[in-house]
Amino acid sequence: MRRMKPLAAHPLTATQIAAITALLGSAHLRTPQDLAALDPGIDPHNFGACLLVRPGSTAEVAAILAYCHAERIAVVPQGGRTGLSGGAITQRGQIAVSLERLDRIEVLDADQRSAVVGAGVKLGVLAARAATVGLSPGIDLGARDSATLGGLVSTNAGGNEAFRYGTMRERVLGLECVLADGTVITELGQVRKRNEGLAVERLLIGAEGTLGIVTRVALELVPARSPVATAMVALTSLTQAVALARHLRTPALVALEIMSGNHALAVVRSLGLIELAPLAAHPWLVLVEVEATSDEQAESLLVDLLGSASEQELLTDALLAQSETQRHAMWRVREDWAVDRERPGGLWYDISVPLSAMADYVARVIARVEALGASLEVFVIGHLADGNLHVTVNAPYPVSERYEAIAPLVTDELTALGGSFSAEHGIGVEKQATLLRLVSPAKLALMRSVKRAYDPHGIMNPGKVLPTESTAPSAG
Amino acid sequence: MRRMKPLAAHPLTATQIAAITALLGSAHLRTPQDLAALDPGIDPHNFGACLLVRPGSTAEVAAILAYCHAERIAVVPQGGRTGLSGGAITQRGQIAVSLERLDRIEVLDADQRSAVVGAGVKLGVLAARAATVGLSPGIDLGARDSATLGGLVSTNAGGNEAFRYGTMRERVLGLECVLADGTVITELGQVRKRNEGLAVERLLIGAEGTLGIVTRVALELVPARSPVATAMVALTSLTQAVALARHLRTPALVALEIMSGNHALAVVRSLGLIELAPLAAHPWLVLVEVEATSDEQAESLLVDLLGSASEQELLTDALLAQSETQRHAMWRVREDWAVDRERPGGLWYDISVPLSAMADYVARVIARVEALGASLEVFVIGHLADGNLHVTVNAPYPVSERYEAIAPLVTDELTALGGSFSAEHGIGVEKQATLLRLVSPAKLALMRSVKRAYDPHGIMNPGKVLPTESTAPSAG
Repeated sequence: MRRMKPLAAHPLTATQIAAITALLGSAHLRTPQDLAALDPGIDPHNFGACLLVRPGSTAEVAAILAYCHAERIAVVPQGGRTGLSGGAITQRGQIAVSLERLDRIEVLDADQRSAVVGAGVKLGVLAARAATVGLSPGIDLGARDSATLGGLVSTNAGGNEAFRYGTMRERVLGLECVLADGTVITELGQVRKRNEGLAVERLLIGAEGTLGIVTRVALELVPARSPVATAMVALTSLTQAVALARHLRTPALVALEIMSGNHALAVVRSLGLIELAPLAAHPWLVLVEVEATSDEQAESLLVDLLGSASEQELLTDALLAQSETQRHAMWRVREDWAVDRERPGGLWYDISVPLSAMADYVARVIARVEALGASLEVFVIGHLADGNLHVTVNAPYPVSERYEAIAPLVTDELTALGGSFSAEHGIGVEKQATLLRLVSPAKLALMRSVKRAYDPHGIMNPGKVLPTESTAPSAG
Repeated sequence: MRRMKPLAAHPLTATQIAAITALLGSAHLRTPQDLAALDPGIDPHNFGACLLVRPGSTAEVAAILAYCHAERIAVVPQGGRTGLSGGAITQRGQIAVSLERLDRIEVLDADQRSAVVGAGVKLGVLAARAATVGLSPGIDLGARDSATLGGLVSTNAGGNEAFRYGTMRERVLGLECVLADGTVITELGQVRKRNEGLAVERLLIGAEGTLGIVTRVALELVPARSPVATAMVALTSLTQAVALARHLRTPALVALEIMSGNHALAVVRSLGLIELAPLAAHPWLVLVEVEATSDEQAESLLVDLLGSASEQELLTDALLAQSETQRHAMWRVREDWAVDRERPGGLWYDISVPLSAMADYVARVIARVEALGASLEVFVIGHLADGNLHVTVNAPYPVSERYEAIAPLVTDELTALGGSFSAEHGIGVEKQATLLRLVSPAKLALMRSVKRAYDPHGIMNPGKVLPTESTAPSAG
């Protein structure tokens, strides 16, 4: 389902490579031959560039960008390379800039509940350090051990806890960035209240590396999670799930994930999770976690909440996790991709929709997709509490080539519903066609105008989010 | 202490007034003669314009801006006119655009916990409506009955609850705005997770009307406050106050306000709040509120928290409010401006500083100010939990003319401490000199470049935040 515009692919000249080597030292350059031996992350195209550089400081990032700006060389910033929308893929003629060496936790302030970290710090590393002082980054997602803070900021990542603490945009107190021409802007204030004119550096949050490179981040931290209790709940309808969400939405709620029965059944069968098979036979499942001051209190609270939900007919069946193994199995039902393994070539969409519109929206999507082809099947997983669903359209055969026909059925009514066709994975190259179809010409024009203000030569991650403009350089 | 650049002051021509009248109808125009009979809000200069217009729709706002853009007429957006930094003041030759008629609560979605409101909706009105479904805007401040959502967004307002729910930037899910040339951008998604390319419309949050006019706002709502208990606590030092803040920072905490003893004493004497006089004799006071499921539980929780604080020597004395009257008196000690009434002509600063640096910073400010002049006295009030202090420098005589000497003593070390010289009141014209002194040339250059991308002719609130550029039109 990747849809890329071909870019020019002239590799760098020997003079250019020598100049970049002089800036960084050869120990921190990687050629395509070097890269062939390394892990490209989620997408082999991440390592398509003719050169990957590993600057060790903000000043080195600035030197590289100033040079690339002058030479009109396209630059692709890379964090943990876990992005699902192709924002970090590269081509010959481009330079990949990995921030992995900016991996220092510079400040961890338990009084202020804040941290200042290099862009290359991994989320899991920061979470572990914050936990030593009873705090947490307030964001968590499956890629925690690879994803970096710079990448999370650049994609405005969401994850499991966004319904409590917001997305990265709400977590970021300040940031340091390098603009396309090598200009450094350092705004690392660690306070929530800060109004110092136009917050121009904050526009890099979610810009997917198209405006500049994030080098350091100041983050608000939150209290570390208390002991939790976990349950898997079976429901007859999405309407019931939305009512359950409303019932469960208390300060103690720490996770509320949803999956359609066909997704759950595929995982349960694939992984042999026999205990969960009876639940997976229901049309919808919800995974619930609540926290309290002890395991016992969390379990008691969850039992009470689910008991009252049952009395109000907000659920059909429920199973409380009695061990960490059971809890882990429940999370696997949510996070495993059995459907994709068994029937590769599906199309997936990352959308959000207000809770009040969710059930009808999903019913309409299923009806529209099934009307298009009887063999097409819709699978749904997602973060119920913030209305973020991952919708997969699948069939016994690859459906990727039917993107143009299927995408509008899923995405085109979302703006009118107050939702979004692009929730937490960003635009990259995957959602560019949808962006161009659904975002207003007025906003697209302002995006282009703002892009030129930050990156007049169009060297920053060209072709991602917005298509490359005709005035932009050919790569290399 | 207002420091304004003189702007050219040619009034509009008769042709221009006729054209604007044709766009809106004469019923929604106000001449200087009309304005003389109306309340200009916090600053009489708010009504200095030669015309105030009251558009009744986004389309009318767009028509006015398109005309002013073509005619190079300066436009000043106005909400509740409660801003303290002069962002809404106007001069002859400018048009004030009041959004007061955009006062509709269009959506209030209890399932999604969101609202969509016109820019002219007053905060208190939204709070009352949200309360009917058990929700709250998640922001509260003294000007709640005058301040509008459009103004709160445009100044990225903070207030008493920002330590729990963030500033307006964290509350806003989406917004509609009109750019300088009349272009309308409508992004009213009501979901938290939404990544649709560059979030260009969000840059209007905190832009103080210099990029365009906010016409509608989509907001996240939060659960309405539960019953609270209130106490006034006396302390010997700010170091002790910071330690107390850490102790009290639990999910139940809903207010944590600080005041220096000299401020409290002035209020207690001025208002005759005899019961609070013994507490006001201490060097520092803290106002604490916690919430619980009932008044009794809240009081019990607060007594427990303060009891354990006392055992740890985190406070010297404390008084629990036993009635709404006592609670009100405690809040008056925090919010009354007796010092300013008794000794007008003081200088005040709105700063934020990380908790871990607060005590030493304030001690240094006091020492520096006292070294400048023995008759100068420093008063401090503020929102302790988010490190936001309002620092007043006062004397038996007006000290306003000593701004240049005094401001650096208060503001210039804040950036290095991770704080801010401009916390929650915005730049307007009051803090422009400080902005130009303390913000890096690189960031100022990017701010100017971005301003030109949104407002190429410089008609939007010229002279606020950034000085008027030489290429911008003279007003009128």
